[in-house]
Amino acid sequence: MKMAAVTCIAPVNIAVIKYWGKKDEKLIIPLNDSLSGTLSMDQMHAKTTVMASPNFKKNCIWLNGKEESFENARLLACLKEIQRRAEQNEANKELLQWNVHVCSENNFPTAAGLASSAAGYACFVYALAKLYNVRGDVSQIARQGSGSACRSLEGGFVRWHAGSAPDGSDSLATQVVPETHWPEMRVLILVVNDSKKKVSSTSGMQRAVETSDLLKHRVVHCVPERIAAIEKAIRNKDFPTFAEITMKDSNQFHAVALDTYPPAVYMNDVSHAIVDLIHCLNEVKGSPKVAYTFDAGPNACLYLLEPAVAETLALVNHFLPGPNSQENAIQGIPVVPVNAQDTIGALQKMGLQQQAGGLLKYIISTSLGEGAKQLSECAEHLLSPTGLPKRLL
Amino acid sequence: MKMAAVTCIAPVNIAVIKYWGKKDEKLIIPLNDSLSGTLSMDQMHAKTTVMASPNFKKNCIWLNGKEESFENARLLACLKEIQRRAEQNEANKELLQWNVHVCSENNFPTAAGLASSAAGYACFVYALAKLYNVRGDVSQIARQGSGSACRSLEGGFVRWHAGSAPDGSDSLATQVVPETHWPEMRVLILVVNDSKKKVSSTSGMQRAVETSDLLKHRVVHCVPERIAAIEKAIRNKDFPTFAEITMKDSNQFHAVALDTYPPAVYMNDVSHAIVDLIHCLNEVKGSPKVAYTFDAGPNACLYLLEPAVAETLALVNHFLPGPNSQENAIQGIPVVPVNAQDTIGALQKMGLQQQAGGLLKYIISTSLGEGAKQLSECAEHLLSPTGLPKRLL
Repeated sequence: MKMAAVTCIAPVNIAVIKYWGKKDEKLIIPLNDSLSGTLSMDQMHAKTTVMASPNFKKNCIWLNGKEESFENARLLACLKEIQRRAEQNEANKELLQWNVHVCSENNFPTAAGLASSAAGYACFVYALAKLYNVRGDVSQIARQGSGSACRSLEGGFVRWHAGSAPDGSDSLATQVVPETHWPEMRVLILVVNDSKKKVSSTSGMQRAVETSDLLKHRVVHCVPERIAAIEKAIRNKDFPTFAEITMKDSNQFHAVALDTYPPAVYMNDVSHAIVDLIHCLNEVKGSPKVAYTFDAGPNACLYLLEPAVAETLALVNHFLPGPNSQENAIQGIPVVPVNAQDTIGALQKMGLQQQAGGLLKYIISTSLGEGAKQLSECAEHLLSPTGLPKRLL
Repeated sequence: MKMAAVTCIAPVNIAVIKYWGKKDEKLIIPLNDSLSGTLSMDQMHAKTTVMASPNFKKNCIWLNGKEESFENARLLACLKEIQRRAEQNEANKELLQWNVHVCSENNFPTAAGLASSAAGYACFVYALAKLYNVRGDVSQIARQGSGSACRSLEGGFVRWHAGSAPDGSDSLATQVVPETHWPEMRVLILVVNDSKKKVSSTSGMQRAVETSDLLKHRVVHCVPERIAAIEKAIRNKDFPTFAEITMKDSNQFHAVALDTYPPAVYMNDVSHAIVDLIHCLNEVKGSPKVAYTFDAGPNACLYLLEPAVAETLALVNHFLPGPNSQENAIQGIPVVPVNAQDTIGALQKMGLQQQAGGLLKYIISTSLGEGAKQLSECAEHLLSPTGLPKRLL
């Protein structure tokens, strides 16, 4: 039976300089450069199998076990772009006449607001590129699926250059430093319990471009300076500078969302309680030990160095306790508990109040990691040789 | 017994174009013009008696029944400025040698975050001006007590001009239109239950000037355009334009507060639930019927025209019910209940969710009103002829 199959995994990335606003809606060319950390795939990743076969009647896709329509402009744009590049290679002649089946799964809750579409599109494009042996940069293709997906192809810290070409050909992501450059860097994700219907980031940023006066100022005056400064801080492993810029940029992104009409509000009271906790902690310590950043949702992503992890977790467990005043559930890299009574006392003296129990769903303990990669074991394929998801058979 | 006494009342004002940031901290000269509605004193006012007597050993002040120190830079600045102007009148020669006793009370909770210091300083300066027969503009003096106090001297809609003189002599408030110009204008204040320790507006705006890049843009590019447009909308009684600018400016002020480092957050989840409710309502109605605005706290101030009051209140009572799903307590101008079931249904269809009961403390139903004024009845004096607060005797 004739067929070709490739399985890849791709990571989640969390921006420290935020992408918010497109100058080209269709090609997904951003208004400004952005910069993110790629999270370890040990804790969170998307996994995708792409398979091509002359037996497939049409293109099909299954996401997290559920068949979805392939008639999706962004999905088709990615497939078409990769296939256009694949045509340059004579060896693909037959392969390109076959339809594809795609099966993709996240090993973390899709709805948790944890940048699942970035990992998903990065994985899809990367797997297709492997299937057709497409060489060269494919971040500009992943970008057309979900903007920030382009930053999930590489590990470590990654910069997405807005570029200036009208066709988006120079709007691509490059690695700033690999994950091995700053091995002490750790990440805690505080997943907030939240039921509120949220403004999608696509429509939120579109509305911001149309209505926010402050966004224009951010794009032209604030971001270029910050990108240069944070890139330098990362190269120099200067955590205080890295942290301050990260927090300021998160706040400014949410400020622009609030300046949108009608306003787009992603952080909630729990998010702001986390912000207060981190500022109090950093003040007590005399310099920033932890940086928060929030994407288009209430969950906090904390960047911090390894020596600060245990105490920070103890503070979170005290000021934002789990249900029934227990510790919060934690997933990922284990953390050895420490006694943080002195720091807790200092924060209480500053007026920081303990929140009600159960405001967090759970905490993910992770680190930076590598970019998208191919898995060579056939057992890893999510599709059976007949092209159907194994988990549905 | 020789003595002179004057009692005045002064209103609260709620800005529709916000004041945030000083270019001179000491003289309280703002970075930008602001514009507010003066609320009726029937519901909320400060009342102040100033008394001068050769028997008074020193200047004294009682605020809401409690004696406070007179050694307060802002208090002294106002007194000194008024007395300097009073010196120009020969008739004040004796009076100016006497110490003063001041007694001031608000007929609404001081701590509720309802602009009590603006009403208080306006009343203090206005009463002193009456005591010494000081003519001409005194808003530039009230400004030095609490910036926005200058807007409480006049009724209707009032504009505080930032001015350009380094000594602040042209930083004063003038009436745009009296309260009789737009008699249908009504105001609902939704007082939100809140225990969070808040960033004072003085320190919040100071930090914004120091750290927010977006504030600069707001001051130079956004406010001048908005002030001109809203002034025109007020003159033309163009409610949709008035409402849209009011909401945008409230959001932008909170955006700038969020862009401050560390961020200053005044709105909470309840505030944002009110914002959502108003935007849904306005969308259902096809044009803005209600405008929200938030000062440096979580309470919502809704500007709306009389015909929209009853239904808006019914919607608030449905989506933000009182304790045990009862109606919220209401103070001030009575509102005849209406059935808003159709609109409630339309809002539910848009996905608007009912909040938990008891998130609001109470609602104040009021309108626009006149500026500070003197009360001529001696019985109104808060101080006895001996210069002590009557309520403490």
